[in-house]
Amino acid sequence: MPQLGLLPRRTWATLLSQLLRPPRAACISAVGCHSQVAEALLTSQPKPHQEKPNFIIKIPKGTRDLSPQQMVVREKILDMVVSCFKRHGAKGLDTPAFELTEMLTEKYEEHSGLMYDLKDQGGELLSLRYDLTEVPFARYLAMNKLKKMKRYQVGKVWRRESPTIVQGRYREFCQCDFDIAGHFDPMIPDAECLKIMCEVLSGLQLGDFLIKVNDRRIVDGMFAVCGVPESKFRAICASMDKLDKMSWRDVRHEMVAKKGLAPEVADRIGEYIQCHGGVSLIEQLFQDPRLSQNKQALEGLGDLKLLFEYLTLFGIAEKICFDLSLARGVDYYTGVIYEAVLLQTPAQAGEEPLNVGSVAAGGRYDELVATFDPKGHKVPCVGLSIGIERIFYIVEQRMKNSFKKVRTTETQVFVATPQKNFLRERLKLIAELWDAGIKAEMLYKNNPKLLTQLHYCENTGIPLVVIIGEQEQKEGVIKLRSVASREEVAIKRENLVAEIQKRLSES
Amino acid sequence: MPQLGLLPRRTWATLLSQLLRPPRAACISAVGCHSQVAEALLTSQPKPHQEKPNFIIKIPKGTRDLSPQQMVVREKILDMVVSCFKRHGAKGLDTPAFELTEMLTEKYEEHSGLMYDLKDQGGELLSLRYDLTEVPFARYLAMNKLKKMKRYQVGKVWRRESPTIVQGRYREFCQCDFDIAGHFDPMIPDAECLKIMCEVLSGLQLGDFLIKVNDRRIVDGMFAVCGVPESKFRAICASMDKLDKMSWRDVRHEMVAKKGLAPEVADRIGEYIQCHGGVSLIEQLFQDPRLSQNKQALEGLGDLKLLFEYLTLFGIAEKICFDLSLARGVDYYTGVIYEAVLLQTPAQAGEEPLNVGSVAAGGRYDELVATFDPKGHKVPCVGLSIGIERIFYIVEQRMKNSFKKVRTTETQVFVATPQKNFLRERLKLIAELWDAGIKAEMLYKNNPKLLTQLHYCENTGIPLVVIIGEQEQKEGVIKLRSVASREEVAIKRENLVAEIQKRLSES
Repeated sequence: MPQLGLLPRRTWATLLSQLLRPPRAACISAVGCHSQVAEALLTSQPKPHQEKPNFIIKIPKGTRDLSPQQMVVREKILDMVVSCFKRHGAKGLDTPAFELTEMLTEKYEEHSGLMYDLKDQGGELLSLRYDLTEVPFARYLAMNKLKKMKRYQVGKVWRRESPTIVQGRYREFCQCDFDIAGHFDPMIPDAECLKIMCEVLSGLQLGDFLIKVNDRRIVDGMFAVCGVPESKFRAICASMDKLDKMSWRDVRHEMVAKKGLAPEVADRIGEYIQCHGGVSLIEQLFQDPRLSQNKQALEGLGDLKLLFEYLTLFGIAEKICFDLSLARGVDYYTGVIYEAVLLQTPAQAGEEPLNVGSVAAGGRYDELVATFDPKGHKVPCVGLSIGIERIFYIVEQRMKNSFKKVRTTETQVFVATPQKNFLRERLKLIAELWDAGIKAEMLYKNNPKLLTQLHYCENTGIPLVVIIGEQEQKEGVIKLRSVASREEVAIKRENLVAEIQKRLSES
Repeated sequence: MPQLGLLPRRTWATLLSQLLRPPRAACISAVGCHSQVAEALLTSQPKPHQEKPNFIIKIPKGTRDLSPQQMVVREKILDMVVSCFKRHGAKGLDTPAFELTEMLTEKYEEHSGLMYDLKDQGGELLSLRYDLTEVPFARYLAMNKLKKMKRYQVGKVWRRESPTIVQGRYREFCQCDFDIAGHFDPMIPDAECLKIMCEVLSGLQLGDFLIKVNDRRIVDGMFAVCGVPESKFRAICASMDKLDKMSWRDVRHEMVAKKGLAPEVADRIGEYIQCHGGVSLIEQLFQDPRLSQNKQALEGLGDLKLLFEYLTLFGIAEKICFDLSLARGVDYYTGVIYEAVLLQTPAQAGEEPLNVGSVAAGGRYDELVATFDPKGHKVPCVGLSIGIERIFYIVEQRMKNSFKKVRTTETQVFVATPQKNFLRERLKLIAELWDAGIKAEMLYKNNPKLLTQLHYCENTGIPLVVIIGEQEQKEGVIKLRSVASREEVAIKRENLVAEIQKRLSES
């Protein structure tokens, strides 16, 4: 089979080699003297002066606190993502952190060991949720008998990934999902999902990206015409999904040695999965002597053709690549599947390029809701998940490399005094600013030094200072100082709020 | 002892009787046929057509999904609360949903049965966090050796409240905390916390409110001069904290019968806890023959006096009431304590007044961080927690009573057509709107009826419709329709985005 790809295979190889692990888990000490901790905590009255030399305070393995610096980055990114979801008419939804274990287990056959179970404390058996699509969203639709819904959900999920096997993955992480449920005409919501992925990735300015697209029916059709026994479809699909972390050689070995596939069958698959391209590849596969005999594959190809037409109308066709090697590990997909990869992250001079790989993915799952519904009613769905933790990591690294200081507060005005015994005047003044909606801070000291106060502004990036002293009070004015230019002007006390609001609206 | 209160005791009784339980947990069926669920899930290929008549899908007891309607209300309220925290210079922080069990247990002596423990799946013993102040915040400060920090945190916490004992409490709920850590001059950050409580409660327009203030040292001093043995301080304090749910008679009975307090000691306490008022009460207590002999109580009184001075400068003194009956159940408080109650919620005509009670609370805890620090270093803290779930409930009820429809999407423009075969033109048009940042929707149908499209706008509250048809296409225009007025104007195709943006900025 000839290579039909738009991109030379080498580009893909580079891409694949860049495909990444998310950030390493913070190095957490495993040593601890817990009995002493417990003992210290047992005393209901704190004993602050008692030394506890072996006391080690830590957080659970694979988790981390998010510092104010990280929170600022996350807030900005999440705002951008959620506002894109809202631009497309999505509603918000929130679901409990844990679900009944029976709802979760067996759904994730290959991953059930990764579930965090709650202790049986009498009552129901519960587990922390593993993702936002399957159990919360599909379960929510079935439980509320909803036939259509466009929703987004942002929330934490938990997976007990073994740190030794999957290095550096956090066990608690954020997910960011958008899904469209309902019976609609073909490929219109599917195309919108791809449009959203493009808008999010362009909007976050992460650099050039590409969205690989395939269809689960084409994958299955390909397996069938290559001679994979139907009972092995999901297992072989799972192997194929590892192509972003392993070479074809290794994947082929797994298929043959571990999953018992005939070598010639694997080689036939190997030929197909070289194929990647655009609409022309679809046309060529329609003519493929083997694939064109498979009904499922033809359905998938027909839908992809329509999809590319819509993507062209959306102006994003050049960002999309039909790629027969894309399998997506998740079992529940039934139609189109897709995965966005960054082609190159903007590395700083002298810095290692960041390895990131897949930053968004999704697909169509028309049968999942029915598995939750007592009567088996179908609610077709298509959706996407933003790899928000990877994106956080990229942006954090980029900021670190740029040495740009992140402001962790939004304070606009600092209330200062050069003199002693001006606390009361400062308190009155700052309350006036707060009441006017101005973000303001002062030092919690009776008599702070002026220099300390000005340094605080410089260190925390507060742009304006109002200064009140004896002289100003006598004259009924306040000094307004720009921290950057160090310019000071006297403003009439009664005009202060208006003047500050004017300055802030200009900046 | 004479009654010193500013308010007649009856007002307090009314208040107390209103003090409430949060909303009832959604009624969740306890019946289910789980083995069938499990069996259904065991099949990796969905079998949608197989009937599962006894299949009952549900979520864990005491939890609930938050619908898009609820999410809209929550988002607005949280935005308001967080923007107030930011106005006061707070930084964001996030911590894991679970902590090491040893960090959590014994900290909450009376509540340890309420902790959700995770199953021991090999590795660390973990529990879901119980609040945001104690373990996450104090643990974070100690772990990172931070000596000062002004932070807010919004997040879920989990408590296994028995639904039979504490009716209607959710086991998963949101908390919203603001805290100031650091060595500062007395009562300045404390006063700011009260200012924040006032700003949040006024900003949310929940109706009239009052913040009760006391000091843990005054409580302890009062116990001492009344003759409570020191070993019983915390237990008697816990009883006193129930005054918002029980009458003094019942609390007194608990103190005497269950906690073994001498009846005359309880009666002496009973006299003090009648006292509530303002600065004049502080002055009177300075003269109280018994209390003025107690060093701790005098310290507390001195600080409260200073606090009231600052509250007057902040313009909020009339919202604050010094109340000797306020105890606050939490063990770790060491100084000033406070609790905000709604005096009357704005009930609709013919509606039962909403019972809400405490909607925000907090206090000073100077010793807590030291209990986490290996060297016992002290980091004084003062903070507050907004009773956000109660506030959500009040606002939700109020909206329900007003029959006001909540928009669950923010869509500004709908793209419609009156004609068949205009899907492609609609797709092009909507992409143009999205790319211009306009929130836009269309129906995912090849040929939807115009009436269906216009009904969709009316039902979901979309204000503008752009209509494209054959005629418009020929003339190079688009019709722009206002859903409310039903007025339509023709706009040149190339001016459409600008015209929409103009209209949206005006509305």
